[in-house]
Parts: sequence; C-alpha cells; structure tokens
Amino acid sequence: MLAAEIIKKKRNGHALTEDEIQFVITEYTKGSLPDYQMSALLMAIYFKGMDNVETLSLTKAMLHSGITVDTSSLAGFKVDKHSTGGVGDKTSLILGPVVAGCGIYVPMISGRGLGHTGGTLDKLESIPGFNTQQSLENFIKITREIGTCFIGQTKDICPADKKIYALRDVTATVESYPLICASIMSKKIAEGVDGLVLDVKYGSGAFMKTAEQAEELALKLMAIGQGYGKKVVSVISSMDQPLGRFAGNAWEVFECLEIMKNVRNPLYDETRELSLQLSAQMIHLSGKTNSIQEAYKLAEDCLVSGRAFEIFSKMCELQSGKLNDLKFSSQKIELKADESGYLTHFNVEQIGVAGILLRAGRRQTSDIIHPTSGIEFHKKINSPVAKGDVIYTLHGDEAELFKDAKEYLQQSFRVTPSKISNHQLIKKVLT
Amino acid sequence: MLAAEIIKKKRNGHALTEDEIQFVITEYTKGSLPDYQMSALLMAIYFKGMDNVETLSLTKAMLHSGITVDTSSLAGFKVDKHSTGGVGDKTSLILGPVVAGCGIYVPMISGRGLGHTGGTLDKLESIPGFNTQQSLENFIKITREIGTCFIGQTKDICPADKKIYALRDVTATVESYPLICASIMSKKIAEGVDGLVLDVKYGSGAFMKTAEQAEELALKLMAIGQGYGKKVVSVISSMDQPLGRFAGNAWEVFECLEIMKNVRNPLYDETRELSLQLSAQMIHLSGKTNSIQEAYKLAEDCLVSGRAFEIFSKMCELQSGKLNDLKFSSQKIELKADESGYLTHFNVEQIGVAGILLRAGRRQTSDIIHPTSGIEFHKKINSPVAKGDVIYTLHGDEAELFKDAKEYLQQSFRVTPSKISNHQLIKKVLT
Repeated sequence: MLAAEIIKKKRNGHALTEDEIQFVITEYTKGSLPDYQMSALLMAIYFKGMDNVETLSLTKAMLHSGITVDTSSLAGFKVDKHSTGGVGDKTSLILGPVVAGCGIYVPMISGRGLGHTGGTLDKLESIPGFNTQQSLENFIKITREIGTCFIGQTKDICPADKKIYALRDVTATVESYPLICASIMSKKIAEGVDGLVLDVKYGSGAFMKTAEQAEELALKLMAIGQGYGKKVVSVISSMDQPLGRFAGNAWEVFECLEIMKNVRNPLYDETRELSLQLSAQMIHLSGKTNSIQEAYKLAEDCLVSGRAFEIFSKMCELQSGKLNDLKFSSQKIELKADESGYLTHFNVEQIGVAGILLRAGRRQTSDIIHPTSGIEFHKKINSPVAKGDVIYTLHGDEAELFKDAKEYLQQSFRVTPSKISNHQLIKKVLT
Repeated sequence: MLAAEIIKKKRNGHALTEDEIQFVITEYTKGSLPDYQMSALLMAIYFKGMDNVETLSLTKAMLHSGITVDTSSLAGFKVDKHSTGGVGDKTSLILGPVVAGCGIYVPMISGRGLGHTGGTLDKLESIPGFNTQQSLENFIKITREIGTCFIGQTKDICPADKKIYALRDVTATVESYPLICASIMSKKIAEGVDGLVLDVKYGSGAFMKTAEQAEELALKLMAIGQGYGKKVVSVISSMDQPLGRFAGNAWEVFECLEIMKNVRNPLYDETRELSLQLSAQMIHLSGKTNSIQEAYKLAEDCLVSGRAFEIFSKMCELQSGKLNDLKFSSQKIELKADESGYLTHFNVEQIGVAGILLRAGRRQTSDIIHPTSGIEFHKKINSPVAKGDVIYTLHGDEAELFKDAKEYLQQSFRVTPSKISNHQLIKKVLT
C-alpha cells in the first residue's frame, strides 16, 4: 500500500477501507510513515470527513496501537465520564467519589489541559504530592479498594493517538469530527469500562459552538462506543459561562472540596448540579436503579452524607496527595463592572485565554502551569450587576501577569438592561 | 508569526498576506518550518485555492528563495518555452535551435521526466556524453555563442520549489492550480528571460483533461508572467495522442534529428508542426516580425535550410554530447490490431505508464531511466487500421519488461468503424 495513494483517495472524497486505515496508523505509530504524509491525510480528512464505518476503523486502529487496561479483576460495573472540555469544568473530582460511593467502579484515565480548557490531571496535581503516574496494577488496586482512582495517560495506551494529537495541534487539524471521535473513543475503550457518560459541551467556551453541533458530535461518539458494545449516554450541557465559582487548578479543587463538605453557595450550584446529574447517568447506566430520579437520589445522598468526601480524601492519601497542604496564591486584583444591569453574556474562550495568561492553563503542551493561579467568578448569567460590583477576581503569585489577563477579561462579559430567558445548564440527554 | 495559525487561516478559506506567504516559504527553505506543517498547508491550498494576488506572492517568495540567472550579457531578446508535459513531447529540441537560428536567444533550463510525462533533460542525456550540468557562466557563454543552451535545474535556483515539489509528490498535493503556477513561473522568471511561450496541454495524456481546464491554467500562468513584466503567450494543444512517432529518450532525439534533417514522414508531422508553431510564437514575441505568419515562415526557413540542425549539432558538441554515438535498443516486439476500422482514441496516460514499465520514464525521482527504451507509434488518430496492422512497436534491451508494458498498451487505444471529426493539434492561442 502506498501512503500517497491513500491520501489521494481521501482527498478525492472516497471512503478508506479498514485495511488502509490500519496500514496508515500502524506505519505511523512505528515511525515508518512520516509526519508530513500523516498531516496531509489529516487535512484531507478535515475537508472530506469520514463516514461511521471509517471512523470506527480509525478508532479500532488507534485502540490497537497500544495496550488495553485489564479491568477483569474489578467485579462489577465500571463506568467513566468524558467531557469535551470547558472552563471551570471540574465535575470529575466530585462524580468519581460520588459514583464510587454508590458501589460502581470509576477507573478514570484523564488528560491535561490544552488551550483554553482545563484538564483533570492538572487540577489533581495542584494537591501537593498527588501522583497521577500510577502503574496500571496500582490503578486497578486503588479502584478495587475505594471504587475510584485517577491517573494520567500512560505511553502504552493508544500511542497512535498521542502522536496524532500532537501533530493535529500544530497543523490546524484539531476541529474534525472523525478525528475527535477516534481520539476520545480509542482512549476510553482502552480503559476497559462497561459504560461511558459523555458530557458534550456547547457554547462560547466549547469546541462546539451550538447545541446542534454538540449533539452531532455526541451521536458520532455514541455510535462508536455502541459499536464496541459499551453503554453510552450523552449529556449536552452549556459552556456559555464558566462552570461554578473558580477556574484555576488549586481553586477548582477547593471548590470541589467545599461542595463535598456540603458548604452551600449559589456560585457552586452549577458545579454541584452538573456533577450530580452526570453521576446519576453513570449510576443508572450500571442497571442499579429503575430511574434517573432514583439514581440522582443515590448520588445526592452519597454527597450529602460525606461519603464522597471520605472517598476523595482516601484517594488523595493512596495517591500520595496532601489535601491539607493545598496552597493558594498570595496576590489578587479585582475587575469591576462599569455599568449596571444584568450579566447576560460571557465569552468563555476569552476567559480561558486569560487563564492561560495567568499560567493557570497551557498554550503548548510544554508550558508549565502555576497551580495556584486562577480566576474567581462573582457573577453568573442573569446575575444583577451594579456599577462597581466585582465581576472577577484574578488570583496569582506573579502580579505582573495580571495586566494582560485583565485586558482579556474586560472584553469577556456583557452587562445589559434585562435578563435573558434561554439559559439552561443541561440542554438534552441522549440515550 | 505562527505557522499553525497560517495553516488555519488558509484552511478556513481566507487569503494569506504576502508577509505570511513569505514567512512560510523562507522558514521552510531554511528548514525551520517542518515538512508536516508545509504538507498540511499544501493540502489546505489544494482545497481552498489561492487568488491571483496570493499566487503571485507565492511565486515571488519561491523565486527569492534562491538566485536568479544574470542574462544581462545576452544583448537581445531572450525567450523560453514551457510545456505542461505529455508523452512524446519533444518540441524543445527542435524549437531551441530554430529560434536561436532566427537570432533570438533561447536559454533553456529544463526538468526531468516524472510520472507518465517525459523530460527534456532525459532526452538530451540519451546522447552519449551530453552534459546538462553546466555552470551558469557556461550556460550564458554557450547561449551567447550559438543562441541556445539546455541545462538542468541547479540547486541555487528556486530551492523552495525543489523542496516543495518533492513534498507535493508524496502528499497528493500536485494537482493544485496555484501550486502548479508558482512552481512553473518561479523557475521561469528566475531564468531571466524576456518572453515565454507556454504549451499548455489537455487531453488523456495531460494533467488537464479538458481544453477549458488547460485554458484556465494558462490564464493563471500568464497573469503571473505579466505581473513580472514578461511577454507571455499560451498555446493550448492536444495531448489526446502521443506526439509524433516515438516516445522514449534516444528515440525522441532520433525523431528530432530526422525532422531537422528534413526527412519527411507523416508520423513526424505533428512534432514538426507544433515545434514550428511554438517557434513562431517565440519569434513573434521578440517583436522581430509583424505577424505570426511571417514568424512561422522564418522558423520554417531556419529548419529547412539545415541551420537548426547545425545549431543543435554545435550545441551537442559544446555540451560534450556525441550525436554520432546515439544508441538504440536491441530488442523489440509489435502490438497488432485485433480488428479493422479507424484508430479514434488513445489513453495517453496509459501509454506513459507503459513507458515507465519499459524504464523509458520514472515513477519516482530516484528511478534510473533506460535511454534506449521506447514506444513507436505506427497509427495516429483517424488512421485507417486493418486487422493485423502494427499499432505499436515496443523497443528495449530487456525483453522481459515487454510483457507488462504490452498489457497496458493493449488497453490504450480504440478502433472504431468511423473517424472522429473533432481532433485538432492546436485548439487556441492566448495572447
């Protein structure tokens, strides 16, 4: 098989065969197909797409480029959640312990943040000592013991995805449904879970700008998961405002701890609610409950009882994290409203970029994160705003980073005379 | 400037600025922009195109990636011809000496054959000893002395084009108007000529399958040349049959020598006529004549008088080629017609592929050519054919190569009960 002919075939809009896709991925993973042919193929896929059969073949080839996790020693239903990413999106830290507390295994393999969206690993690593680089044996052992464990991608799982993702990032080929689908699903299938809840976000802070696009992506992702015999549901949720009170790694851990300790604050409401809704879907997927309502009740009980907090604390301990040593930053400035009215619009991507400028996030994979930097949100969509009210607090240890971030943040919200009527956290659940 | 952002801009269908194009080409030439970003950009250009301003910027950037030829010591009009390529397309060998014999300089920098189309350098190098790797000083000296000289691309002229062309070849990004235009025109402008005649071919053996596509390409090429203040005309000519009697390097030289020696054979007619028509355009571009007819008369006189043959012989001598030592192959087989009627259709690309199988051409730049291999055409479009008539003779020194080539050739022509009416060598001249 000639790589150039395969590129040409896709360029001309034809579907690739399973053998052709397998050939490309295998040769690329072992380094015999060069980056320049892969990037040309990725761009051709960007323009010409892939049908469901091709996308499934691509997922399969990427999945088989490495090892899969043997979860057979976990007797019972195993479920994970994947979010397409957003700002302040910290639900994993809550739903892992909540669902584990309801007797369902949640073995989570997470990624790092890139661009304006955050990553679970970075949040956890803001806890001093927390080790996300566990062996797979330890990963299974901890999950068996307390029901959940959070680790990072290992180099043995889907190596093709790692290589391709790095290439997509520098060749403007990230925004492609089949490439996104195969990347997400190959990793999730490699984890060996039985069920998967997808949190597919739309809005100004999401990859998908509209609910329709998010739904389209969700259906494609679900088709692949179901093709592998997995139970998959999708929650289509809004990223039209940052989730909850904080964005920034240590700050987000703090927010989750507060929620798990039952501290109530309206600014926490969305984080708490989305975490419980996703938990309910995860629990219900296991077949343990007769309705989502019942599953939601189980999840909420687990949270309110303090069991989720206990499991989270235990997980930190088992993964060498010292929760009591969590550090916050020493400097802050406030950004205030120039006018009165209602906060009706956030440009969440711009907020994410401000986060990068504060070093709470990464522009490139090689960037070093400041775990104590962050942005605090004092107003949410439809909050009344009086001139002079604080909209954001910028937190960090290097005050000289505030200036540029503040400029971005100044442009990132709009105050108008009246409320908007159509804001909702969860748009739809696809089962 | 970030290469990934430039790729994204083109991918999204926006025009690139001159600075962006300059940045990409400069960085790529010096190796700081990697192949994988260039190939992604090339694929984006394949899909989204480039407008005339962008194409001119690309040509300029590629031109300035290397040196240009200083032709200032050639006092008088300097003209070149470029053909988009075909099978048996050997007119350069005739028109160079013809136009030079009319007092106009023809400094020709030519390429090698790739794929099903032949290259002037390969034809000349079938003459034992012929050295196409002259220094630029010698190139100008020989041109000054006898009016014409044929050399190959040097590494100093348009190095960006060389690097990009090699990449396009393996990433399915050859067939793109702006990329074709910039590649051709940057090299031709670097040659320092005042005028250029483009032989833009269409048909089953050409890159452009229809006359309309050829005309579209011609207009784009002309716009760039004119943007550089060059006089440019385009001849839109048919590649619906191989040109003349032979395809294959030594055989094509032989055909040109026969024509320059005034041997008349109906199988030579198209080669002779196209060479004279292109010569006439080149002569007329110089301003030496009042009409194309007058220019054609000058060209034909030069050919018939034997002056063109003298100049060609002299050029071989000055470039160390021993014309009298021209060798031909020892083996041949014939391919005969199965039915009677008229030959009305050639699949010229397939004939070119048969030529590659005989080693008369290259599939990859690293392939070694057999200069004595070739295909002889006994019938042309609208020739009457009787069952058992010879259609092709395959020539070569390795008889074991004949089998595969013959299979291709068997599928490469069609005999039908009646003639076709619409075959013409030159469709149009664009001035």
